[in-house]
Amino acid sequence: MKIKSEWALIGRIQKLLARTGAGSGPGLELGIGDDCALFDTGGEYGLITADISIEGVHFNLDTAGPSDIGYRAMASNISDIASMGGTPAYAFISIGIPRGMNEKTVMAVYRGMISVCKKTGTVIAGGDTSASRVLVISIALYGKAGNGRVLTRKGAGPGDGIYVTGTLGDSRAGLELLQKKGVKKSYPFLTRRHLRPDIRLGESSVIADEAGARSMIDVSDGLVSDLRHICESSGTGFEIDADSLPVSAQLKRYCAETHRDHREYALYGGEDYELLFTAPAPGAGTLEKIGASRIGMIKDRGFHIILGGRKKAVRIGGYDHFAGR
Amino acid sequence: MKIKSEWALIGRIQKLLARTGAGSGPGLELGIGDDCALFDTGGEYGLITADISIEGVHFNLDTAGPSDIGYRAMASNISDIASMGGTPAYAFISIGIPRGMNEKTVMAVYRGMISVCKKTGTVIAGGDTSASRVLVISIALYGKAGNGRVLTRKGAGPGDGIYVTGTLGDSRAGLELLQKKGVKKSYPFLTRRHLRPDIRLGESSVIADEAGARSMIDVSDGLVSDLRHICESSGTGFEIDADSLPVSAQLKRYCAETHRDHREYALYGGEDYELLFTAPAPGAGTLEKIGASRIGMIKDRGFHIILGGRKKAVRIGGYDHFAGR
Repeated sequence: MKIKSEWALIGRIQKLLARTGAGSGPGLELGIGDDCALFDTGGEYGLITADISIEGVHFNLDTAGPSDIGYRAMASNISDIASMGGTPAYAFISIGIPRGMNEKTVMAVYRGMISVCKKTGTVIAGGDTSASRVLVISIALYGKAGNGRVLTRKGAGPGDGIYVTGTLGDSRAGLELLQKKGVKKSYPFLTRRHLRPDIRLGESSVIADEAGARSMIDVSDGLVSDLRHICESSGTGFEIDADSLPVSAQLKRYCAETHRDHREYALYGGEDYELLFTAPAPGAGTLEKIGASRIGMIKDRGFHIILGGRKKAVRIGGYDHFAGR
Repeated sequence: MKIKSEWALIGRIQKLLARTGAGSGPGLELGIGDDCALFDTGGEYGLITADISIEGVHFNLDTAGPSDIGYRAMASNISDIASMGGTPAYAFISIGIPRGMNEKTVMAVYRGMISVCKKTGTVIAGGDTSASRVLVISIALYGKAGNGRVLTRKGAGPGDGIYVTGTLGDSRAGLELLQKKGVKKSYPFLTRRHLRPDIRLGESSVIADEAGARSMIDVSDGLVSDLRHICESSGTGFEIDADSLPVSAQLKRYCAETHRDHREYALYGGEDYELLFTAPAPGAGTLEKIGASRIGMIKDRGFHIILGGRKKAVRIGGYDHFAGR
């Protein structure tokens, strides 16, 4: 049987691990199913996340420079640690390099990774190099989770407000701009948001320590898709107000000029790496400190979006590597 | 500049990390340059290794079944933990899957990985899935290193005996047999040694605890190449006696029939995943318990092999992904 959907495949793999008992064991508090695994080291708790980026699937060398590609690959991993409220520590980089690639290009990829590592206090501690047909960057990241109290996807309760840091939809618009040459000069903020996303590490610790948050995830697949991950793990529903979604001035301008709806970008665009969390009653001062907006509420069931005053059941978006599109 | 050699590239990357300070930081006892990184978690010490296997480079689906490919990819990571004297704990599997691949094939890859995990007490704790042009299996493995006293490549001293577990050269012969159909029936041991290598975890702890070993590595690149890694890290030389290398009866028979020299296979064949260690004076009982043979001695300097009674300076072999061959 051909693979039809990434989510179905992951479901099959999870079932196989459950059946064989290979997915759980002593000391492992959280295995597959969240942004990171969580385990007890006897001292601090450890978090590990792993992400793979493949040329032609996650990036193309004609729309992003090698240094940007390195930056984004590392940033997406560090964001997974941030989304649990942890602190990144050690990165392991396995890289597959096309045989004809210039050494300078490879060094630029590393320089991009190093730049985000330096900003976030992450040390590059190991890895592997290989030849490959296309550029492959596979990163595993170890982070520290203190006493093990982390924010997971599970924990949202009906009545929780839904909050998100920063603005949404910029990265998708930035990618579109990079794909069509000649337009990008007017929207440097949007392309930068795609190529060099901010990682919300400082915000993450405030959310974990001060906001009374009960669940968290980073926006990588897209708001609706990531919110659905929270709700499916928590056994809840959601209602969000599309008109309350935080969008940047440049995204509004871009959408006005291209006759698009910026709410679509905010709802379904991925890779913004903003933090999405739920909390019963975070203080206004806390929300201001981290630049977070309230966008809706956790419900008992159902996935709903209020769009122009009308409540609609949701279309589940987000990127699926195996869906025919 | 085109990439000429994997080792030169790794050297460039290490220099960049050193110059930017991105390769070292608090708590990291060992970074890039050994089989695993070693770090202090505040409780037990942690080891992490990462290895990538790419279709067409590390394996081909026409010479190995998908389950064997999964087995070998996981085994090579677990062997890196064994080579430091650690205990494997949590595996993170990032997999790139060709869009047309059958789901059954993907599940077989996982079943191969699970089978070696179950044998070794390793839990599959996370990972990532993506579409890809060719099959890519990238694994990161967390292992436990107790109080942090591990066996590294550095630590061999002149006068140490050089020892290796099991037999050498079988895996390379097994691969050759798999590549030429019709021959393999007579040498099931050799093909099994290639497809389902034993991981010397039990032996590893005996070597660490009882043999008084001062350095260790696993034979993945090939005996001469891996011994050179030990000597370069330790600032020493070596002298090995090619006639004392442990070889299996099937390898001898295969080499006799194909008019090859089995010592060449033992010296330069890789992926046997046997443990290579140095120790001043391990007890005969200990060596017997782990099936280890003495093959030479650590010297002040120089890399020499005694072949048919004549001492020769060494030809450095081992696989280089970017060398033109």
